[in-house]
Formats: sequence, structure tokens, C-alpha cells
Amino acid sequence: MQIESNIGQGAGRANDDDIPEIGVGMLGYGFMGKAHSNGFRKVAYTFWPPPAVPKLVAICGRSGRGTAETARQFGYSKYYTDWRDIIRDDEIELFDNSGPNNIHADPCIAAAAAGKNILCEKPLGRNSIESRDIWDAAKRAGIRHMLAFNFRFVPAIALARKLVQDGVVGHVYHFRGQFLGNWFLDTKAPMVWRLNREAAGSGAVGDLGSHVIDLARFLVGEPASVSATKRTFTRERALLNEPSKMARVEVDDAFEAVVEFKNGAIGTLEASTVCSGRQMHLAFEIDGSKGSIRFNLERMNELEFCLADDEPKEVIGFRDAIVTKRNDPLYDRWFDHLSQHMFGYEGTIVNEVYHFLDCIVNRRDVAPHGATFEDGYRCAVVCDAILESCESKRSVEVDY
Amino acid sequence: MQIESNIGQGAGRANDDDIPEIGVGMLGYGFMGKAHSNGFRKVAYTFWPPPAVPKLVAICGRSGRGTAETARQFGYSKYYTDWRDIIRDDEIELFDNSGPNNIHADPCIAAAAAGKNILCEKPLGRNSIESRDIWDAAKRAGIRHMLAFNFRFVPAIALARKLVQDGVVGHVYHFRGQFLGNWFLDTKAPMVWRLNREAAGSGAVGDLGSHVIDLARFLVGEPASVSATKRTFTRERALLNEPSKMARVEVDDAFEAVVEFKNGAIGTLEASTVCSGRQMHLAFEIDGSKGSIRFNLERMNELEFCLADDEPKEVIGFRDAIVTKRNDPLYDRWFDHLSQHMFGYEGTIVNEVYHFLDCIVNRRDVAPHGATFEDGYRCAVVCDAILESCESKRSVEVDY
Amino acid sequence: MQIESNIGQGAGRANDDDIPEIGVGMLGYGFMGKAHSNGFRKVAYTFWPPPAVPKLVAICGRSGRGTAETARQFGYSKYYTDWRDIIRDDEIELFDNSGPNNIHADPCIAAAAAGKNILCEKPLGRNSIESRDIWDAAKRAGIRHMLAFNFRFVPAIALARKLVQDGVVGHVYHFRGQFLGNWFLDTKAPMVWRLNREAAGSGAVGDLGSHVIDLARFLVGEPASVSATKRTFTRERALLNEPSKMARVEVDDAFEAVVEFKNGAIGTLEASTVCSGRQMHLAFEIDGSKGSIRFNLERMNELEFCLADDEPKEVIGFRDAIVTKRNDPLYDRWFDHLSQHMFGYEGTIVNEVYHFLDCIVNRRDVAPHGATFEDGYRCAVVCDAILESCESKRSVEVDY
Amino acid sequence: MQIESNIGQGAGRANDDDIPEIGVGMLGYGFMGKAHSNGFRKVAYTFWPPPAVPKLVAICGRSGRGTAETARQFGYSKYYTDWRDIIRDDEIELFDNSGPNNIHADPCIAAAAAGKNILCEKPLGRNSIESRDIWDAAKRAGIRHMLAFNFRFVPAIALARKLVQDGVVGHVYHFRGQFLGNWFLDTKAPMVWRLNREAAGSGAVGDLGSHVIDLARFLVGEPASVSATKRTFTRERALLNEPSKMARVEVDDAFEAVVEFKNGAIGTLEASTVCSGRQMHLAFEIDGSKGSIRFNLERMNELEFCLADDEPKEVIGFRDAIVTKRNDPLYDRWFDHLSQHMFGYEGTIVNEVYHFLDCIVNRRDVAPHGATFEDGYRCAVVCDAILESCESKRSVEVDY
Repeated sequence: MQIESNIGQGAGRANDDDIPEIGVGMLGYGFMGKAHSNGFRKVAYTFWPPPAVPKLVAICGRSGRGTAETARQFGYSKYYTDWRDIIRDDEIELFDNSGPNNIHADPCIAAAAAGKNILCEKPLGRNSIESRDIWDAAKRAGIRHMLAFNFRFVPAIALARKLVQDGVVGHVYHFRGQFLGNWFLDTKAPMVWRLNREAAGSGAVGDLGSHVIDLARFLVGEPASVSATKRTFTRERALLNEPSKMARVEVDDAFEAVVEFKNGAIGTLEASTVCSGRQMHLAFEIDGSKGSIRFNLERMNELEFCLADDEPKEVIGFRDAIVTKRNDPLYDRWFDHLSQHMFGYEGTIVNEVYHFLDCIVNRRDVAPHGATFEDGYRCAVVCDAILESCESKRSVEVDY
Repeated sequence: MQIESNIGQGAGRANDDDIPEIGVGMLGYGFMGKAHSNGFRKVAYTFWPPPAVPKLVAICGRSGRGTAETARQFGYSKYYTDWRDIIRDDEIELFDNSGPNNIHADPCIAAAAAGKNILCEKPLGRNSIESRDIWDAAKRAGIRHMLAFNFRFVPAIALARKLVQDGVVGHVYHFRGQFLGNWFLDTKAPMVWRLNREAAGSGAVGDLGSHVIDLARFLVGEPASVSATKRTFTRERALLNEPSKMARVEVDDAFEAVVEFKNGAIGTLEASTVCSGRQMHLAFEIDGSKGSIRFNLERMNELEFCLADDEPKEVIGFRDAIVTKRNDPLYDRWFDHLSQHMFGYEGTIVNEVYHFLDCIVNRRDVAPHGATFEDGYRCAVVCDAILESCESKRSVEVDY
Repeated sequence: MQIESNIGQGAGRANDDDIPEIGVGMLGYGFMGKAHSNGFRKVAYTFWPPPAVPKLVAICGRSGRGTAETARQFGYSKYYTDWRDIIRDDEIELFDNSGPNNIHADPCIAAAAAGKNILCEKPLGRNSIESRDIWDAAKRAGIRHMLAFNFRFVPAIALARKLVQDGVVGHVYHFRGQFLGNWFLDTKAPMVWRLNREAAGSGAVGDLGSHVIDLARFLVGEPASVSATKRTFTRERALLNEPSKMARVEVDDAFEAVVEFKNGAIGTLEASTVCSGRQMHLAFEIDGSKGSIRFNLERMNELEFCLADDEPKEVIGFRDAIVTKRNDPLYDRWFDHLSQHMFGYEGTIVNEVYHFLDCIVNRRDVAPHGATFEDGYRCAVVCDAILESCESKRSVEVDY
Repeated sequence: MQIESNIGQGAGRANDDDIPEIGVGMLGYGFMGKAHSNGFRKVAYTFWPPPAVPKLVAICGRSGRGTAETARQFGYSKYYTDWRDIIRDDEIELFDNSGPNNIHADPCIAAAAAGKNILCEKPLGRNSIESRDIWDAAKRAGIRHMLAFNFRFVPAIALARKLVQDGVVGHVYHFRGQFLGNWFLDTKAPMVWRLNREAAGSGAVGDLGSHVIDLARFLVGEPASVSATKRTFTRERALLNEPSKMARVEVDDAFEAVVEFKNGAIGTLEASTVCSGRQMHLAFEIDGSKGSIRFNLERMNELEFCLADDEPKEVIGFRDAIVTKRNDPLYDRWFDHLSQHMFGYEGTIVNEVYHFLDCIVNRRDVAPHGATFEDGYRCAVVCDAILESCESKRSVEVDY
């Protein structure tokens, strides 16, 4: 349906020859749909000149009213309530799937078949089989695909990867990753789709653990095996729209896993939604033969680094580096607007969108800096192994 | 001059009756000009519905080419190389002065006379006399005016003010404020306008100290007297465009001041540009009869707070609170796009722009949450008192 | 053999009726032997009046010369080179076994049979069978026994236990404990007894993991099962006295374990000797339904605590409490000499020695604040379960 | 008077030829008297072989009963209630004055005249004139004298000095020192001698500021001038022994000062007794042309250090070094008992006592590592300049 007002249209009608336009169709108008929409609007001028100017063609959601309002807010020309309309819309070259996990597979597979490039929210599917199907469809279609593991675009995390890859930390001995929050600590917090097995696939494992696993793979390499346990601490929650009715929580509030990596490193993977004082505690530690690294998303502008043989010897210790400097890896243009100031979560999405546009327009590989659907599949395999180990009480090998 | 392309036009041609447009004219296309332009583009959809949709009418800078390119980047319809053209442009209702300190007075006074509302970068003038002139002009014209002390819009700082105002910290005994960085530690860093007395007025005092002083006034109240000293550690620097030639550094690299407040509190005000490992260390501590507060801009999402009589008694200490929660003061809409994620410097500008638009459209007072030109003048009086004390070696009273 | 000099005799010949003497015999004159000897000397005046004045009767070591010198240093009246002489010495009522792990069993069992009270360094035995033998001997003899899990006497850890026991953190969901250091990161560090399976039993598991396990049990409760993996990163090291010869490292440099507790909590247990920048990083986190706790031995005077429902709500976060206050649990007398100053590792041993003397003289139970040989046995069972899980690649139940 | 019991006699009657005895007389049996007594007892075996074995001859206090009990606790052979008895006692070669500030001058001057070496608690006198008298008496007598600025013996502070002296931080630009606590925040805390001008001389300036000034001089060099202000926030307090009666608080609760150093550095000196959440916050920052240092006594085992040109460049930041390693400056023997464990306040006193004994027996200079009475005098001159500036509202030059 045509939007009557185009207030807030992000990128104007480019009549400039050298900056191409690219038509964007968005599925989802919740938090992630808005965060991505902001990314598409900002990319047009944040990186200058941009690889392409995103044209916000259409946004799709279940509620016509909410979707229309979001279209107006962000400047989408049209809105739909059936995702198939996005697939059918020829103006759309880039399909952004920011919907819940259970509507990742069908729309993505259809979009791939229609030849659209796809940016999909994580996790790719609700399990490894569904994820494999999506990845296979993308491969078959030969489109460009990217999974929104946006934290790869935190400068401090990109720097951590560079330090590992350049050999500065030496041979990796340990990786410990965790994602802790207090989101479900309140037993009176209502049931949401993330706690529903049909909609979400799993709980902390798929939602939070997937970020930890992706960072483990991005920074250290492939896991070889996992041994895990999980818990659902609050087994019933009130329905959001019918608070007098209780629904059973079918997914995990938390998991703990030991992990062995193919390169010999050992460590832990954990996630929990019941930790007081934790807001967005996606944190990792890497210990290597020459040095160690620490990171916490709550202090996303900082990377801690210790060189085992640092000089002067008397003052060896973790250096607390603020990673907003111009010489930080890959981020020259990023800081054009920021000088040396602190940046926030929002920027990770903007940079992710930039990366995908750049890959599409300039025919670059999304990997290794961006996550592909293959990364999404591999992450799902590790999630499944964790869940299997929770049941079997045995170490489970990661077998892609 | 008319821009040929309108790529990146932030806010579309609103044909919607209930959201008014407001014409914006920008002076300066450097870091601050871009940061403010981004603010005007984002405000149209970040807060929904916005009080007004900014219409980016024109941008003005000395270099025609650079200005034209920035106009194209951000979607300004026109660009000028003479600021008087902005004053003459009737489409412009809001004049944003993001130029260097020495072109604050004349354009602001002219814009006020022309009845335009003004958002001006800090410091207001190069000294208290110039600042008074600008404020007087704005008062005379009856326009709305705001000084870009953007850190007032850091949620953690707004929360600090709330804790003081609500009496949670009790009677204030101490305020210690500092702004430390390493920007001029490198003696080979070239001469820039910030180090030139004619362009900047003063060095660390006006550029950095003004932020510290504004926070002192915003959080604790009016200073009564100051005793200070300053230093220029590197007395000569190479010219930016002619590196073989050296120029004399006429302004201070650092200052230290003791401050007495009208309410009886005592403390320190300091700024330095030669501190290793400091990137944007705008930090303060407030000690009161009931509790204490600590803040550091490098960890801008955190506020530390200690309640003297906290319970349980055995675990009294500074609480490290992450201030990105929905119930944080005044910031409900702010976090619509952020959930509980970390936010960055950029957001302070967006929120500042939102505040000014809201004040203009809805006829609200810029103060106390926003800084007015009166705040800019008062801040300049304190800066002058600091500089005078450095010379006279005596305590100097702050006399507005 | 009689010591010729009594320089440094800690506790004089008490001729005071109301403070009894207690004869002490020490096995080991290395780091731990000295640390305990210092404890016996200090206890006589640190806690005033002390429950008993330790009389340093004899010290025993393999090297006659080194032992004699240490006897002279600390004021032992006699020294021996055969531990059986300590057992035979009727002046000795309290046997302190500070020797390496492989000489814990025989001397302790003999001392128990001889009716001496025993303070033994951790771990109790090299495995659970040996540990059980020692505990059984002590039980049979009816003597008082204490295992030197000295970190139970860190005031911040005692406070953590109190907060859990008082219900302040609510139902426990998570315990994560780790002991990280950089002791064996240097591949050129020589072979020491701690890396020899015969002498030490195991590596990181028994030496460091035992502290983590004891704190888990002390703070949270009994483990139900563990799933673990371990690594020896440096497989050969030069002999200490013959650097041209290499010896095989038979024990683990590091382990990682997932743990399930009987009360439903889940978490991790880890230890590693190859972590740059870690010096004595014995750290734990406890997350409960009402709050969370964090501790790190490198900052042993601090306990971090977060109350989920803290007031004011805007500033909820981890409180960083310095635990050297007079009202801290059980430590009134401790701080008589310290006011509110920081205290160190040494004090944990002094307090441990005080506790044991107090239990002996005043016929109090060593548990629950002090660790008994039963605690040592239970800890060894968990260590064995971890080692078994590393081999079997399965979850292993903890079965006391 | 002869003590009936010698329980707890620290150092036995050495009959060993090569370790001399030295007779100690102590004035004061409060916190500091006990802390020093502990130092004398421990030094006999902590550093082995010790330069001398302290013989605890006599302790002196106003209360016969309290003094006798403390004598018994620590093993002093005699106790006195008139300090002149200590001066007259020929067994005493080392006079330790741990009494309040107002009984520093007369006993110290008399002890010097009697040829006794003197260890005196800080501050030396209640002002610079009294301090000068004491120093002059010591010089005249040719005795060895040391002022108990014990924090010079914190390993991390000794390391800070080494880094400055070795040129690692370059030319010093800034020194900021502060001593913050919450000791007098409670307005109901009673009157104590530290708040009485007659007994104490001044408040925060002399008691806490003296530590800050001594560290400034120890680490950075001589102050040239100060500008200061001070406050007494609670003007009346109940008498300790007669709570219904209020006494006027005549001394400062807090002061703030700007300082200029002779070497061109500028900075701040501050102390306050009304800061929530501060327990023993004696902290300093040094910024130099090559690097920066930070320290906080509440984390006394850590020194933070940032090298401006550190490598790799991407991870420049403050290193958090734990200073308990064997290669730390001057402290080889210190850690004999501590391995790499954390140490506490107590150790600073033990090391201070060791240093003085070593200087006496081995005829070494107390300075520069230890503070002499000259340091005490110079510190008092700076305190007086601060107090004078508070009155005159001018910058006051430091003139020794």
C-alpha cells in the first residue's frame, strides 16, 4: 500500500550519476526493524561518498497500522502486511529480514529464489537444519547474504581479531565467552516470543549464546566439542495480553558449556538472563602464549590487553585501551563524525549495513569480516551440540 | 547557490499537516557542523512523532568546494560562502553556528537581529564581554537561543543532576571536575586554530574548562570564587600548511583551579591536553552530606553513586549503574531505538537538537535542561576569572 | 636437635596463669612453613588476649641446614629432619603439616594416632582415597583437624557467605569460580614438584581448583555433577637442578568444568596457570534471585554486590564495598591493628591459625567457618570427578 | 615499672654474636603505638637475617592500666606513664614517638639530647616552627631520625618513584594528589583529638594533607607555591566522654589547593574527611611528557601506568600492574613470606621499621627512601603555606 506521507525519507531521489540507488525491503518493524531502518538512513551520509544510496521501498509487518506508521516514521514508500509482497516487489533488491526467528526461513528462501540479496537477523534459523536450508537456498541462488552478527563491527572486537590474527597474543590457550543480562530475573516479567520454543527455537542458547559462539569462531576458530548444562529457573510466566493466564516457559533461561577448539584451546561458553547488575554483558577473555585480551560490551569502547613480555617489566598488566582512534582497524571513515568520542550500539548496525551495501555494489565478499549464512549455519550447529549435550550429559562433537 | 543533487536529504517534503517544518541554516562544515547536521537529519525519525521536521535549507563555509560537497552529503538545498547569506535567507528560521569561536559573535548577533532562533557551539564568545554582547542581542531580539553544551544531554549526567536536585546526595560539600586528554601531548602536533589566541580566545580554559564549568553550574550551582594557575608546555608548534615554519602557542595547554561555590561547597576545576592515556576524560565527583557521585565521559553510560547510609551496611560502596534504562530521567523516547544497549556521543547531539526544536515549536524554555546564552555568558565570566587569577595570583570573585 | 639461639622466639615463656601455652610442631620450612610460622608468632599478640600462646617447639625439613636456619629465624626450640621425631615429641600438641602433597598422608595419620591436633596444608591428599584415609584417621583419633583453606578467612569472602546465608542474594542460580595466574606461562620455567604427578597428584585441578571447589562449597553448597576438560600446554620442562635435562610434565596446566549444584544452581569451575596479567586471580561470581556478588583475590579487600531491587532504582548496579570495616562479620578483633586500612594475604593465615587455636582451647567446632579434613575429602572427590570427566568425556556425578 | 609477665616478647635475648640487639622505647599505645610495636616484633624474622633484633624495653602512655596491658600484649619489659622515664632509660637506644601531635616536640627534643635515635609519627610538629625545632634538635644531637611517612614503603609507590627518576614518564607536567575518607561525614561522630587545634595543629591539612604533600615531594619534587581554600562542614561535635556537651570544631574537615612545583609542573593537593564511599583514598596521578601514573591506596597492590608511545599503538592505555613481584624495586626480601600474594598496610610499617634499624646499625642515610625530620619540616612549611593561603586568598610561596 502506498504511504501518503514521505516524511522522514532517508535518502532522496538521487539524480547523481555516480552514486547508485539500491531498493530496500524490510520485514519487521519492532526494535530490530527500526535499528536496521536507521542504519539504511544513516549510511547514505555517514560514509561519504556511500557505495550506494538505500532507497527505502517497503516495510512489512503483521499490523497494518503499526507498519504504516513505521513506514511514515522512516520514510518507506510503501508498506505490506504479507511478506510475499516484498518478494514480489521488483523495486526491492535487498531484503532485510528483521522478524522473529520463526519467520526467517520461508521469507529468506523465497527472497533468495527471487534473486534478492539478504540481510537477516540472527539466529539464521531455529536450529541447524532450518539454518542449513536457508544457507543452501542462498548458495543456490548465488545472491549475497549476510547474518546480522553486528558485534563483529564493534571496533574493539575488530581490533581483538586483528591482535589474534597478527599473532600478538600468540597461540591461543583459552577463550571464555559469556552473555549475561537481567532481562528475565523478574519472575513477574511476562511471556514473550523469545521464551516460546515454537517462535524462538531455544532460549539463552540461540538468542544470546549465538553471539558468544559467533565471537568465539570470529576471534579464535572452530569449536571441536562442547559439554553443557542448562536451566529454566522460572517455569511459568503470565501471558502478555492476558496476565491472569500462565504459560509454560519451554526454553532455557541460562546455559553453561565447556568448549574445546580445533586448535587445542579450551574455555567456556555461557549465557544467562537472570544476573543482577548485568545489562548487556557480552564479554570474552582470550589467553594466548604471548598475551591476553578482555572485552565487555557494556564498555564497548574499551579493549583490555596484556602483553606477557611487556616493557618495562615492573609495570606489566592489562592495558585499558579506548578503541575510538583513527588508526583503529577498518574504521577510518567510521569516525569522521566522531573524532575520538565514544560511540554506541547504534553504530554497529550502521557499519554492518554499510558493509553489506559495499559488498553488493563493489562485489566484495561478505566474509570474513561480515558473517554469512554459512556462519549462521555453523553457529546453529554449535547451538544444537550444546542442547544435545545438555540432554545426553556427554561431550558432543561439533560436526558441520 | 543551489545544490544540484539532493542525495541524502534528511527530511522529505512533509505534506503532512500535523508535523511542521522548520528551516535550518548551518554555519561550519567541519566536525561540529557535520555532527549537528547529523542531529537534524536523525531527529526527524528518532523521536516519533518529532516536534518538527528540520528542513536543511543551506550550509555555509569558507571553501565553496568543501561546503558544496558537505551540502550534498547531508542534503542541504543550498550552500553559501558568506554567512550573511544565511542571515538574509528567509527560509531559515533556525541558525546553527558551528563555526570556530571567532565567528560566533557577528553572525549570532546578526541572526538574532533577523529574528532567527540560534543554536551556537560553545564557548559562546571568546571572553565574557563578547559573550555578553551575544546574549544581549538574543535577549533584545526575543528569539530562542541555546548553547551547545551537549553533555547536559548525556543520560548519566541528567541523572546526576536529578540525584542532586532530589536531595539524594544531601548538602553538597565538594565538586571536582576535570577534562583531560592527550591531544597536544605530542610536541610535533601542528598548530591549529584552537591554539591561536585570536581565533580561540583561550586554550584549555575556554575549550575544555567551559564544559567543566558548565557541568559545575548545571549540577552544583554558582561558583563564588576561583584561584588558578595555567601552563603552556609546548611553546612553539609547526604551521599546519607550512611545517618548516614555527608559530608561537599563545594559549594555555592546561589549567588548575580551586573553586568555592556560593552554597559553601569547595572543589577543583581542571583541564589538560597533555595527559597520556586520556581520550575524553571529562569527569566529575560530587560529595554530599548523604552520598557521592562519580562520572567519566569515557564511560558515558555509567554513573557511580554511593549512599552514605546504604543497606545492608556491610556492603556500602560506589554502585556502578548503567544508565540506559527506560526509567532514566527524561529519556523515554531516547531509548526507543536502543533497548538497553550502550549509546554514544552522537546521541547527545541528536537529543540536544531535539530539545531545541521542541522548545521552539512548543514554546518551552530552553533552560534549565538546555543551556542558554545566559549560561554561555556566565561560563565565560568564570573562564575570565580563572585567567585573571592565573595572572594576579589571587583568588578572584565570580561576578556576573 | 636443640637450637642454640632463640632469636626471634615468638611467644615468650608465659608465666601467666590465664593464657595457656600450646606446643607447635611444624613440618616444612618453605613458603607455607614460613607463612604458618609467622601466623603462630603473630597470633600471640594480634588477638588480645589470645586463646593460647603458641610455643614453637620444633620444625622439621629434609635439609638439616635450611631447617636449622628457619628454626633460628622463627624461634623454634628444636629442629628435626625426620618427621617421625615430631610425632614422637610429647611437647607438641599441634602438628602443622605444611609440606608438599605427597607427605601429607603418612605424617598426618601418624600424628592423629599420637593424639595431636592437626592443621594441614591443602589439598588434604593427592586424591580422594588418600584424603579419605587421612580424614578417617583423624575421626578415629578424635583429634581436632583443620585444612588450610585460608581464603575462607578473607573478610570479603566471609561476608559473601553471610550475604548468601542471610538470604540477601536469594536462591542461588549461578556460581562461577576461577583461579588464574601466569605462573607456568613461561615455557622456560623449570620443572617443580607441583608439576610432578607423584608429588602433587594433579596440576591445576588439585592445586588451584581445590581452592575454587572449596569456595563453591563454602559459599553455595554441594556440587552434584561436573563435566570437564583439561590441557597440558607445555609438555616438557627443564629440570631445576639439571637444566640441560628435560622432564615430562605429567599434570594439567589448566582445566575447565561445568558444574551443577544440588540446589539447582549451575556454573563453571576453572583454573589455569598460563594467563598473562593474572597474578592471583582467585575470583568468583554468585548470581541469585535477589542479587549478585563478585570477588577477586587480587582486590581482596573489596566485595562487589548488586541488589536487584535496590533503591533508588535509577542507580542500581554493583556496589564496590571495601571490606575492612569494624562491623564486618567475625572480624572485630582482626582490625584492632588495622583501623580501616587495607590488609593482605598474610592476615588470612594469622586468622586461620587463631581460629584453630581457639577451637582447640575453647573446644569449638572447626566447621563451618574453618575447613575440616571432611571438607578436604569432599574437595578431593570433586577433583577426582573433574579428572574422571576429562577422561570419560561425560558428566560425572559427585558421590561422597 | 617492671612488667610481671613477658608473654609475647617479640625478640628473644639474642645470644648470637652476629645479630646485634637494639633497645626500643615506645611512646603511645593507641593504634599507631600498636602498629609500630607489631613492626618491631615482626622485623626480627621477616627479613632474615635482620640488621638488629629489637628489644622491646619499655612502653609509655597516660593510663597506667592500658599501658601495662599493652606492654604485656607486645612483650615490653617495662611500662611508664611519664615519657621522661623513657628518655632516662639507658637501655633504650631507639625512641619511637607514636603519640598525638602535641607530644611530639618535647619528648623528641629531649630524646635527641639524650642521644637516642628517633622514629616519630607524622606530622613532625603542629606547624613549621615546632617542626623546625625538632629537626634542629636532631641535627644538633647527630642522631638518626626518621618520620613515619610509611606510604613511601608501599611497593607500588616506590615503583612510581623509580619510574619518575628513571625518566620513564619524562618531564613531569602534572601531579594531582588527594586523601579522601568518610571519617567525619557522620555529624554525630564525637569530638576526637584530631579535631582539636591545640592537640592536632590543623585538621585535614596536617593529618591527611601531610601524606599527600610528602608523596608530592617524594615523587615529583619541591612545591613552589600554593593557593588554597578550606572548610569545616560540621562546626560542633559532642564530647566523647560527655555526649550531652558540644565542643567547637576548630580545624578543617577538608581543603583544596592548587600547587605549582619548582620544576614547572602544576596540579592539585586535596584532602577531605566527608566523602561517602572513600575509606583510605590516598591517590595520586602523575602526567609526564612520556607517560602517566595513577595510584590509589585502597588498591595498594596496583600501579597504573600508561606509556604515551606504547606498542602496539592500537592498544595504548593505562596498564594495571600488580606490584607484588620479586623484581619490584628494593623489595626482594619483603616478599620472602608473600610469594606473589597481596600485601597490606601492616607491611608498610614493618618495612619502615626495618629501614630505620638498617640505617642505624649499618650507618646508612635514612633519606632519600625514608623520610627524615627535614622532610617533616618541609612538609610542615607547605602545610603552613596552604593554611596561610586559605586566609589571605592569595598564592603563597613555599619558602623553606
